[in-house]
Amino acid sequence: MVSYYIGVDIGGTSIKAGVVDEAGRIAGEADLPTGADRPQEVVLKDILRVAEAAVGAASLARADIRAVGVGSPGTVDSETGVVLYNYNLGWRDFAIGPMMSEALGLPVRLENDANAAALGEAVAGSARGASSAMIITLGTGVGSGFVIDGSIWTGCNSAACEFGHMVIAYGGRPCTCGRRGCFEAYASATGLINMTREAIEAHPNSALGELARREGVVSGHTAFDAAEAGDPVAQGVVDEYTGYLACGLASLINGLQPEVISIGGGIGKQGEGLLVPLRRRVEEETFGEKREGQKRTRLVSCTLGYKAGLIGAAMAAR
Amino acid sequence: MVSYYIGVDIGGTSIKAGVVDEAGRIAGEADLPTGADRPQEVVLKDILRVAEAAVGAASLARADIRAVGVGSPGTVDSETGVVLYNYNLGWRDFAIGPMMSEALGLPVRLENDANAAALGEAVAGSARGASSAMIITLGTGVGSGFVIDGSIWTGCNSAACEFGHMVIAYGGRPCTCGRRGCFEAYASATGLINMTREAIEAHPNSALGELARREGVVSGHTAFDAAEAGDPVAQGVVDEYTGYLACGLASLINGLQPEVISIGGGIGKQGEGLLVPLRRRVEEETFGEKREGQKRTRLVSCTLGYKAGLIGAAMAAR
Repeated sequence: MVSYYIGVDIGGTSIKAGVVDEAGRIAGEADLPTGADRPQEVVLKDILRVAEAAVGAASLARADIRAVGVGSPGTVDSETGVVLYNYNLGWRDFAIGPMMSEALGLPVRLENDANAAALGEAVAGSARGASSAMIITLGTGVGSGFVIDGSIWTGCNSAACEFGHMVIAYGGRPCTCGRRGCFEAYASATGLINMTREAIEAHPNSALGELARREGVVSGHTAFDAAEAGDPVAQGVVDEYTGYLACGLASLINGLQPEVISIGGGIGKQGEGLLVPLRRRVEEETFGEKREGQKRTRLVSCTLGYKAGLIGAAMAAR
Repeated sequence: MVSYYIGVDIGGTSIKAGVVDEAGRIAGEADLPTGADRPQEVVLKDILRVAEAAVGAASLARADIRAVGVGSPGTVDSETGVVLYNYNLGWRDFAIGPMMSEALGLPVRLENDANAAALGEAVAGSARGASSAMIITLGTGVGSGFVIDGSIWTGCNSAACEFGHMVIAYGGRPCTCGRRGCFEAYASATGLINMTREAIEAHPNSALGELARREGVVSGHTAFDAAEAGDPVAQGVVDEYTGYLACGLASLINGLQPEVISIGGGIGKQGEGLLVPLRRRVEEETFGEKREGQKRTRLVSCTLGYKAGLIGAAMAAR
């Protein structure tokens, strides 16, 4: 008999749920807008509705479900199921695990959302089969999760895996965390957009500047698109960005030598266009013997997309 | 019946061996100069002599020994017992494990020396009883080892735990590894000495400058000594150094949240004089809830001194 789990992924814009089997396959999905400005108790009701809807979409009954996994942004305590603090949603001491468990009559496992997505990619996605994997999500911020033998590394207090706030440039660019020089301030889409804007300001008549004006917006794709079209200013931005990204990844490899690093998030969608030059730079900056047969960290793209979060949450509930 | 292990610590200046019981207590010790300029096969003979001498010093016979652990600097392959590369000793593809095993008739486990020292501190020293510990050695370089549940984290290829080469200042001070801005280039004794020299050059008439001239040398203690005597220039150096050190430690904590970080090496001997301001700065730069009852990484001094390497090598052989 197949065992099913509900995986819930709470995002800033939508709540997604999926019914997932033991191997990480989705049997049914549902979603609703998060409505982040509402009180946390009201959001909880929608979380429960989405979970129920996913069970319906899978043509299953609640009795077919063994457990629920929830991925939430912010600082979470997986032991107690409490979201301690979440800046974007304004949550504080939200006992979402116990509350959902009571409402659904099922065990609930709470994880940080980035950790859950990492677990999804590690167990059922791009790093499937690897004994250790680091998942790096390049979006508005830099999310990260370190998975050892199918378990998320949580450290002594469930607060680990904030590798986006590893400082790579002492005293450098301001970060949303209030410090300076964090990996996130450079390697996130936000960091790339800042670098792109600065290049446009310095070279307004470049093809990069023209593209930005034509599109009316600077995004994490602008520099990549203009570089691909042959603009040297845009190529400079891509090189600068890739240099910082490689720097942070090299530090993680020199420190932890995971079997796989999977790159996801909006910028991760560049795929091999990003990964080919990135691998070359990372290779230059990492230790370990570079001879035939010697294992080296594989740098790959995430494959599950938005589904990583809910699959991983479900996997965490196993 | 007590089980004994030989632990060997190969350093740049001396080879140390100890006979160690299961709990990490030393029953006998011996050492010899390394003679690093000699061919590796000649050094091997002295390594075997030191191991035998330690057994004699413990008033034991070789039959009382269950296994041998060896800590070697450089890149080692613990699976095969081969030192792949060691710059300082000029070693390349040195099958020290199999060779020692044949000569002694005992199983031999090879580890990187910093990893072995970390294991010693984690299992039998300052981090005894912790489920996860990071040991950071502030000497000529910055050594590091990450120990989870009594095992050294080696990554996918035995090359992990080079946290000294985590870049904290992109494009910054040159590092011995050929890159720029590594944690080691700032937080090592060498980094501190460079900062001290620069301050003396800028302020030759400071008490710091006078102390250096009187002692005829600038060491890792010069700035600490002059700062303790009240010199503001020296205090500036100590603050600068502590800032970089805190930056790197905060990145490690935000990423891994180990239960304990133990600080060792020459600079580590400053003890609480270093740790008190360091804890304050690290606290400012780390995440995780700071409320009552929430576990946070403990920052402590290493306690085993030079014995950590040989005790840890022996523990690795268990």
